[in-house]
Amino acid sequence: MRDIKINLSFYQPAIKMKGLWLENNQLQLRTDIPTPEPSPGEALVRVLRAGICNTDLELIRGYYPYTGILGHEFVGVVEQGPTHLVNQRVVGEINATCGQCRFCRNGQPTHCENRTVLGIVNRDGAFADYLTLPTTNLHPVPDNVSTEAATFTEPIAAALEIQQQVQIQAADRVLVVGDGKLGQLVAQTLALTGCDLLAVGRHQEKLANLEARGIKTGLAETVTDRSFDLSVECTGNPAGFAIARRALRPRGTLVLKSTYAGNLSFDASALVVDEITLIGSRCGPFPAALNLLATQKVDVQPLIHARYPLSQGLAAFERAQTRGVMKVLLEMDRD
Amino acid sequence: MRDIKINLSFYQPAIKMKGLWLENNQLQLRTDIPTPEPSPGEALVRVLRAGICNTDLELIRGYYPYTGILGHEFVGVVEQGPTHLVNQRVVGEINATCGQCRFCRNGQPTHCENRTVLGIVNRDGAFADYLTLPTTNLHPVPDNVSTEAATFTEPIAAALEIQQQVQIQAADRVLVVGDGKLGQLVAQTLALTGCDLLAVGRHQEKLANLEARGIKTGLAETVTDRSFDLSVECTGNPAGFAIARRALRPRGTLVLKSTYAGNLSFDASALVVDEITLIGSRCGPFPAALNLLATQKVDVQPLIHARYPLSQGLAAFERAQTRGVMKVLLEMDRD
Repeated sequence: MRDIKINLSFYQPAIKMKGLWLENNQLQLRTDIPTPEPSPGEALVRVLRAGICNTDLELIRGYYPYTGILGHEFVGVVEQGPTHLVNQRVVGEINATCGQCRFCRNGQPTHCENRTVLGIVNRDGAFADYLTLPTTNLHPVPDNVSTEAATFTEPIAAALEIQQQVQIQAADRVLVVGDGKLGQLVAQTLALTGCDLLAVGRHQEKLANLEARGIKTGLAETVTDRSFDLSVECTGNPAGFAIARRALRPRGTLVLKSTYAGNLSFDASALVVDEITLIGSRCGPFPAALNLLATQKVDVQPLIHARYPLSQGLAAFERAQTRGVMKVLLEMDRD
Repeated sequence: MRDIKINLSFYQPAIKMKGLWLENNQLQLRTDIPTPEPSPGEALVRVLRAGICNTDLELIRGYYPYTGILGHEFVGVVEQGPTHLVNQRVVGEINATCGQCRFCRNGQPTHCENRTVLGIVNRDGAFADYLTLPTTNLHPVPDNVSTEAATFTEPIAAALEIQQQVQIQAADRVLVVGDGKLGQLVAQTLALTGCDLLAVGRHQEKLANLEARGIKTGLAETVTDRSFDLSVECTGNPAGFAIARRALRPRGTLVLKSTYAGNLSFDASALVVDEITLIGSRCGPFPAALNLLATQKVDVQPLIHARYPLSQGLAAFERAQTRGVMKVLLEMDRD
């Protein structure tokens, strides 16, 4: 048999990377994903750490259609991009916007009509070795904020969105329903307003984190008081909604911070009679969130329950879906 | 047989009156109801006219438990009360309040924790020859407002409540869903703000009333635009809610003006993603409503579809429940 020599020099394979790929409600670890190439105005970010969020779990359960790399809570290092960002540790806002539509022009870019959303809508996400985002989405992480802590920037910003939507007074009686990851960050950020705060949930050990920070807590079922000015629903289930609704005084405000599987049913007549305000709340301000981390006004360490390298991403997801487990982090730099 | 003479002078029978009495979901015309005696601080009002509202129809259908005389939209003449009110034509706010609770002290008497509500909660209503209300609830009707028009004071006030809750700008795009009694008053009052208004419903002939006043109208099913800043749901049915919800831009506001039979189901995740605000809206300011009637800025005449004497009250209710019929008035002074 003769040796056959083939000239492969014309073939420039794209560099492949690892990533957690969702397709047809199946999550898989792929190692053959082409490393993305940043479009004009975008940066290439090498991901250092990323956090698994309930939205990721819901995407896997098929609540929203999505195909691609999951993940939207991350810290990375800019490898390609504008000089002032290259080699910087960054976090990134998740909505990539058009800059042209009426919402962009009106200062509401998170509602851009043409947006893609990192790891959620038409844009590959952060559970991979690399991602791309518009450079305007990126925020350098202050030196005194650890990479691990900075992965919480996105959910802390989401928690702070409440304070962008509702003016909270020190005299206000505020109830947070839900002691999970989001509920804990919502409670910690609302406590900073000086309001009269009660956080309730179903897990004594999780509520203990908040007690340790001087926040009043209780079991969700024990709320009989119907005089709260504001309640924040962070459970994403109808039972949590019912508790948050029932606790309000007339003309009180209920903030919906969690997404829900399927429809939610409520007594609309009682909402009319009591003139309740219901507000949906999503993404919030990154600079303020980074500032809270830099000044150590929010403590995320108790929320971290497990760490996995990206190569064990499927195990990480299994863990994240275990009852009682809070934040599970993926560490891309451990592979 | 001897004549037996009985001295009846010690027996002072209460004067009886007519009234439409609801008990066990059955409405009946009674003629044996004791004429009410005003408590301290209350006035005795002889009812002249009263309007049948959808809430009355819902009470009959048993959506809320209530036993007693129905009716809460009325005009009457004060027969007993403070000198400045006696012989005056008056309308009355429907919430009788305690003056002591935190809502009363806080300037929100319509949410008084101990309130009774005329013809709705623990207080006999206006579909009778007489009613009593606290004198502080009563507002004299300006001379140039007809008794018939003044029966609309309560629903006009309810329509104006929207403007107490939401700051409406001239540039705002506003959608009113529902061309019934309440929808028409909501549309007419919102038009006065100068906003960019569209009123939609399912009845060309009802929408024509609004068109005649220069208000843009359309059929509810034809709303495809999703860029309204504010929508007001005045149908009290889930289909109306769906139209009002779908028409909103992200961060838009949906005012629920109607009560609903049973629960309402909605996509809570979409509410969160779009950061929609939902506001329940009930009773509003009487003085402003009377002012609109006095200055003829609202036209109620096209809304009146029938008039009955109180003695034909059951027929009036039958008419009011007929498809397409708008306001049916009871005329106590015709008996």
